[in-house]
Amino acid sequence: MKLVFSPSSPFARKVRIAAIELGLIGKIEFISAKVVPGEANDDYVRDVNPVKKLPALILDNGDVIVDSYVIVEYLDELAGGGKLIPASGPSRWRVKSDHSITQGMLDSMLLCRYEKAVRPEALRWQGWSDDHWNRAWQGMTRFENRPDVFSGPLDVAQIGIVCVLGYADFRFADCGWRKAFPKLAAFNEKMMQRESVKISVPPPA
Amino acid sequence: MKLVFSPSSPFARKVRIAAIELGLIGKIEFISAKVVPGEANDDYVRDVNPVKKLPALILDNGDVIVDSYVIVEYLDELAGGGKLIPASGPSRWRVKSDHSITQGMLDSMLLCRYEKAVRPEALRWQGWSDDHWNRAWQGMTRFENRPDVFSGPLDVAQIGIVCVLGYADFRFADCGWRKAFPKLAAFNEKMMQRESVKISVPPPA
Repeated sequence: MKLVFSPSSPFARKVRIAAIELGLIGKIEFISAKVVPGEANDDYVRDVNPVKKLPALILDNGDVIVDSYVIVEYLDELAGGGKLIPASGPSRWRVKSDHSITQGMLDSMLLCRYEKAVRPEALRWQGWSDDHWNRAWQGMTRFENRPDVFSGPLDVAQIGIVCVLGYADFRFADCGWRKAFPKLAAFNEKMMQRESVKISVPPPA
Repeated sequence: MKLVFSPSSPFARKVRIAAIELGLIGKIEFISAKVVPGEANDDYVRDVNPVKKLPALILDNGDVIVDSYVIVEYLDELAGGGKLIPASGPSRWRVKSDHSITQGMLDSMLLCRYEKAVRPEALRWQGWSDDHWNRAWQGMTRFENRPDVFSGPLDVAQIGIVCVLGYADFRFADCGWRKAFPKLAAFNEKMMQRESVKISVPPPA
């Protein structure tokens, strides 16, 4: 199978970490791509994902699986199931909901990034950036106050948090999350000892 | 359980349709809320969803499930499982991926809506609206060319498509999707015969 990805995409990083942790990385061929709002990606949009998002997993039979979360679910089932997403019980919904929060945080951080680096400077709206940055920050606040999220075995919500924090370092290096959220900083430090997390850190901006 | 929702949210509509189709609507109390970029929602962000998105499902024990898709999954399992999301096999990943495409289409349509109705007029960027509207349009093109998506029993991808089309009617009434996509128009017409779909149409804009 082939993963269409970008080294700087936090969504693709999530899939890469999951694939390594699930022992499936050797079965995946990586294809680098770039999608930017305002630039055309006609082939990708027509053949792979009409909504122009990365990553996408192309199976050997040509089927395309999109959405980083759905790809992780697919890989998890391929690896036997219940590995990174609990198979049942309240923890299943806790992990899925926490993961969705990290997804919303990343969506908002990308919107901040596009606002400050892609949109023409004269058309930037501080209220928009503030609103979306606040969502990311409130998400960090929530996880800082819920350290039980970090205490269980590795799951897709923890991976999502690491991708959020790595993206903060990558695109918002001065935001000061480590100082504001010491428990998140300790968690990130611990996660960085995993090979999967370390080698998937985004390249220097 | 309680669903925090807005009558105009296409994501909340998806959950309402699913809850009716799964026979669970009677177990849900509805709480109306409004979230708009640039306006504070401190209580909701602190107590329910830090990333400020609707809908959210609050269980009787206080646990919060967020993300319309995760809520539909939860309700589906509550109803026995495998109802709106195939439990296994290739159709499981096809439905999940198609649903994710509808989710991306809605995300882009909301960004278009915010660009043209929430952002200060002097700060609007046509390139951004064009890019995101194109994602929605390409998504419709994709489904128009894949009518097998409509032929199976009701699933969450079909519900997602109906929510996309209803949102197009609600916020982009002049976009001409019915003329451009006759198969989607016929599918929408058929779906509108379901009580769940009919009663959840957004109120007049």
